[in-house]
Amino acid sequence: MRRTFLSRNLIVFVLMSLGPAFGAGERDCPLPNARQLAWQEAELGVVFHYDLHVFDGQKYGQSGNRITPISDYNIFNPQRLDTDQWIRAARDAGARFAILTATHETGFALYQSDVNPYCLKAVQWRDGKGDIVREFVDSCRKYGLKPGIYVGVRWNSFFGVHDFQVNGEGPFRDNRQAYYRAMCEGMVRELCTRYGELFEIWFDGGASHPDKGAPDVLPIVKKHQPNCLFYHNEQLAEARWGGSESGTVPYPCWATFPNFYSHGSDSPREHLRLLRTGDPNGAYWMPAMSDAPLRGYNGRHEWFWEPGDEAHIYPVDRLVEMYYKSVGRNSTLILGLTPDPNGLMPAPDVVRLKQFGDEIRRRFGKPIATAGSVGWPSAHPTSGSQRTRANQPRHPHGGHPQGRTGARIRVGRPLRRKLDHAQPRHLHRAQAHRAIRECDGD
Amino acid sequence: MRRTFLSRNLIVFVLMSLGPAFGAGERDCPLPNARQLAWQEAELGVVFHYDLHVFDGQKYGQSGNRITPISDYNIFNPQRLDTDQWIRAARDAGARFAILTATHETGFALYQSDVNPYCLKAVQWRDGKGDIVREFVDSCRKYGLKPGIYVGVRWNSFFGVHDFQVNGEGPFRDNRQAYYRAMCEGMVRELCTRYGELFEIWFDGGASHPDKGAPDVLPIVKKHQPNCLFYHNEQLAEARWGGSESGTVPYPCWATFPNFYSHGSDSPREHLRLLRTGDPNGAYWMPAMSDAPLRGYNGRHEWFWEPGDEAHIYPVDRLVEMYYKSVGRNSTLILGLTPDPNGLMPAPDVVRLKQFGDEIRRRFGKPIATAGSVGWPSAHPTSGSQRTRANQPRHPHGGHPQGRTGARIRVGRPLRRKLDHAQPRHLHRAQAHRAIRECDGD
Repeated sequence: MRRTFLSRNLIVFVLMSLGPAFGAGERDCPLPNARQLAWQEAELGVVFHYDLHVFDGQKYGQSGNRITPISDYNIFNPQRLDTDQWIRAARDAGARFAILTATHETGFALYQSDVNPYCLKAVQWRDGKGDIVREFVDSCRKYGLKPGIYVGVRWNSFFGVHDFQVNGEGPFRDNRQAYYRAMCEGMVRELCTRYGELFEIWFDGGASHPDKGAPDVLPIVKKHQPNCLFYHNEQLAEARWGGSESGTVPYPCWATFPNFYSHGSDSPREHLRLLRTGDPNGAYWMPAMSDAPLRGYNGRHEWFWEPGDEAHIYPVDRLVEMYYKSVGRNSTLILGLTPDPNGLMPAPDVVRLKQFGDEIRRRFGKPIATAGSVGWPSAHPTSGSQRTRANQPRHPHGGHPQGRTGARIRVGRPLRRKLDHAQPRHLHRAQAHRAIRECDGD
Repeated sequence: MRRTFLSRNLIVFVLMSLGPAFGAGERDCPLPNARQLAWQEAELGVVFHYDLHVFDGQKYGQSGNRITPISDYNIFNPQRLDTDQWIRAARDAGARFAILTATHETGFALYQSDVNPYCLKAVQWRDGKGDIVREFVDSCRKYGLKPGIYVGVRWNSFFGVHDFQVNGEGPFRDNRQAYYRAMCEGMVRELCTRYGELFEIWFDGGASHPDKGAPDVLPIVKKHQPNCLFYHNEQLAEARWGGSESGTVPYPCWATFPNFYSHGSDSPREHLRLLRTGDPNGAYWMPAMSDAPLRGYNGRHEWFWEPGDEAHIYPVDRLVEMYYKSVGRNSTLILGLTPDPNGLMPAPDVVRLKQFGDEIRRRFGKPIATAGSVGWPSAHPTSGSQRTRANQPRHPHGGHPQGRTGARIRVGRPLRRKLDHAQPRHLHRAQAHRAIRECDGD
């Protein structure tokens, strides 16, 4: 119902935007697919980081952890694990999807893998029968969030993988590279077939390219998870990193990109700029993610739980500002959360997430205009944070936004963000219809 | 009781051997410790080889397997596992001890390790709860064989270890080397503390030296298994490899060796000769092992089960010859056995082992002389295969040997093999008593 209703508005909007040029000729205008549209519509998600070193009582050093196996994996022992509590915290923040690091840089898998022995089968916790991915997706569905999975294949300090490459030399290295590739493909297959529909699969640092010996993950995801946003490897990026871990993107931030992948170019500086801004003339739809750890304030920036980091939880005003500079600028915001060694989201984080969600709901809980009505609000949009909201029962903050600050006018936002600036003469009727069908999920 | 009885005979024998030179001066004559004496007394053992590649239906290629991870470890699925059946086969052959490859060159551990995730916890077989080491030692004790453990730390195709060295470069390699060292030490600790008293621990190819980054296993074994023969690393070899996998040693084969370890010298050829013959003037007691796979006949030499190798089981006459040229030459014979993918010793191997044991019992089932009687048999020993047997209720072939061929005269064999050729003037009373105490296990 919602999509049908939205598509009607899109027709109106597209026609209005195209104006006299509608149907005037050929074009090369990218359009979002259903996965991308859903991901952009979601606006706010969270990613839970959880790995062995949460339990070691040490300060996390990413560069060191990547090349240093955790000395005793049986430190993994979340005695009070409660993924419902995690997801309630995410829901209270307004997140519409949640992602879990099924594996991160240690290589340790938070489920019952049959291809990676370095997983929850290995530990004494729950007699080797724990499956946090399972509990996580169940909790997501219980509370109406879409579950996603983060898979780290770029680093594996246990198996000896550094930046996709198995450490070593000669045929032994080559054999282990082939084995690792198959192991990663096997994990992706397991994760794509055991836990129902996934909203997003996130390959840490991208999954490189099979031609370089990296796992050939794209066909697996496409086969088993046709509705899952693929982020990303050198064959496809259905979203792109927004170029910082500040939770923000600059304005303007285009949802289009010149390549079908978002990996680097010859000029890292120019590439970073491109990730942040996108390219209004880019041939590929690739909206930007703004990501930041909740514990990234005032001199620290930690994706993983560490003792004594409570003072580094972002204050509410900073989170709201982040929301404006990400969601408000045509980017999807993904906040990094990390449960503690007990298996719970720490109380201060839970409180802050609720405060943040409440504030966003207070500001945008009611729409200033309802799509389907005749005409447009008098306050014409001047930035991405001002949009009219259509009927969106699944909006993270519920109801129809209305507020004093940042009143949003929104119809078919992602599509419009591109169409505003496309060359209208290149779009004809069939493509407008395709856009509408895409929004309908046809 | 047995040992006390034996020691009385030893006194007689030592005194007789020393003759007029007894007590004549200082000496540097090595003596066996209780572990070595028990190992030499055992005469015949078996070593069961079992690893992932038994299940792959392929011909085993050791050099390839060492550097090629097994593609799917869930092929490990011995549906009819019956270690009682294994040990009955070993018992019928006359073995007094049995050793199991807890890990071999894949790195896969046949038990519930808490330090090596690549173990029976990882597989679907028995829902990840299988422990073959446990069943193996239980079966050994049930049938009166002493259990021993073989640990492979030299190779690990999964983790990426080649000839003790973690493959790779830089700090990542060094960190993984340190991790691997701790993992191996942890496995040795588990194996030495979970399964009761072990008869022998066998480090495949030796365990190198901690100074070279290898696991520091000797203190662990010494602490937890004071009665376990340590074979071997560069710090200690309580037995040595006899220099071939033919199941034989040349004659003479001395139980003494010039070094406290048996690793190589500058001249591999000379070292191999030394391993085979020992050194009559060697300062260290280090008896020789003769090892051979049962499936080593007529053009093949396989420690691991493979399809179609039944024709390569040694015939009985060849096994008897092997026995003469190993046990009969002052060496302990260890036959390599390998269960099939069902988890059972194959029927042809079981039959052959029984035939071999029956023939040895027929030849040596009764002694030609009983120690404790006055004087010596008229047939004076002329080779190591002729010995008088003392009262040995635990002899692999039972009873007191007597037969037409190879009649054995044996009292305190291992000690005598050295004393026969030692310079008697270097042995005095205190050392003779020490030998006797050693035999008594003091």
